[in-house]
Amino acid sequence: MEKIEPSKAYRLLEPGPILLVTTALKGKANVMTMGFHMMIQHDPPLIGCVIGPWDHSYTALRETGECVLAIPTVDLAKTVVDIGNCSGADTDKFAAFKLETKKAAKVSAPLLPACLANIECRVADDTLVKKYNLFVLEAVAIWMDRDRKERRMLHHQGDGTFTTDGRTIDLKARMVRWREFQVAL
Amino acid sequence: MEKIEPSKAYRLLEPGPILLVTTALKGKANVMTMGFHMMIQHDPPLIGCVIGPWDHSYTALRETGECVLAIPTVDLAKTVVDIGNCSGADTDKFAAFKLETKKAAKVSAPLLPACLANIECRVADDTLVKKYNLFVLEAVAIWMDRDRKERRMLHHQGDGTFTTDGRTIDLKARMVRWREFQVAL
Repeated sequence: MEKIEPSKAYRLLEPGPILLVTTALKGKANVMTMGFHMMIQHDPPLIGCVIGPWDHSYTALRETGECVLAIPTVDLAKTVVDIGNCSGADTDKFAAFKLETKKAAKVSAPLLPACLANIECRVADDTLVKKYNLFVLEAVAIWMDRDRKERRMLHHQGDGTFTTDGRTIDLKARMVRWREFQVAL
Repeated sequence: MEKIEPSKAYRLLEPGPILLVTTALKGKANVMTMGFHMMIQHDPPLIGCVIGPWDHSYTALRETGECVLAIPTVDLAKTVVDIGNCSGADTDKFAAFKLETKKAAKVSAPLLPACLANIECRVADDTLVKKYNLFVLEAVAIWMDRDRKERRMLHHQGDGTFTTDGRTIDLKARMVRWREFQVAL
């Protein structure tokens, strides 16, 4: 995996992919599936996401303030759903789903090398956590797997169906007002 | 367009489509393109989005607390980019892009019948507007165009390129833990 600038997070997250989120508390890691997230700011790169007390990962995120957002592609579709259908409270999901992990650079949560990209994050603001379970995260490091061929992200329709990335439309030439955001991934 | 329950907003927004946002202030409507948004809560349906003072629509949203989130499909790709590349300060975008509007049911902002769906919204929480330009909206009405054949959403990669919806993967049968979210659109 190759390190890329944290400020490029929007290139990966603005398309709205379903994500896997890893955390680690007292040496025990967990992974969950998350569909409620957004970019909040390009640079410094801020990300909003909803993780609630119903998620086993909530406690670890609250206590450590750290997580990794990993972007799975279509080859992992079933695993993404299955991870969301069991709990870290009684399941070692990494073992159950044969998910390899790798040490992150700046956070305690592990990276998932099976994913297209991994975004290391720290909680930047918890103002709205009590009311909406809405965390504001800052991306502090990003890793990308440059070698993988499969790059189609999954977009969750909320009910267990996913649309996969199809054709790409390139309209960069028309986006004259926002040229500064046309950085290579 | 057919009215559907506001609580179905997540079925349309969790996939992460690029959106058009309409507002209206003192009888003057405007439309902008928005890529930074997320579902925050299924029901009551809460949506997070970033609209900043650099957007002409910001003042209208602040003053009226109302907007419409419209979901364009691939046939509108160029219009989506062009709307994001001019300002309501000096352009009547509805005229410039030949965009038909229709009166909404609950808000002053207009609907865009050319889009797949229109979500009427009211600002529910502005706690983080000052800090991040992050609005929490509540969906109060949704309209869907049942007759249109083109339903492929656009996912903005942040630089003027878009991935379009490709194949659908149906994994509803595996999503046993969250059956209550499997409502028809």
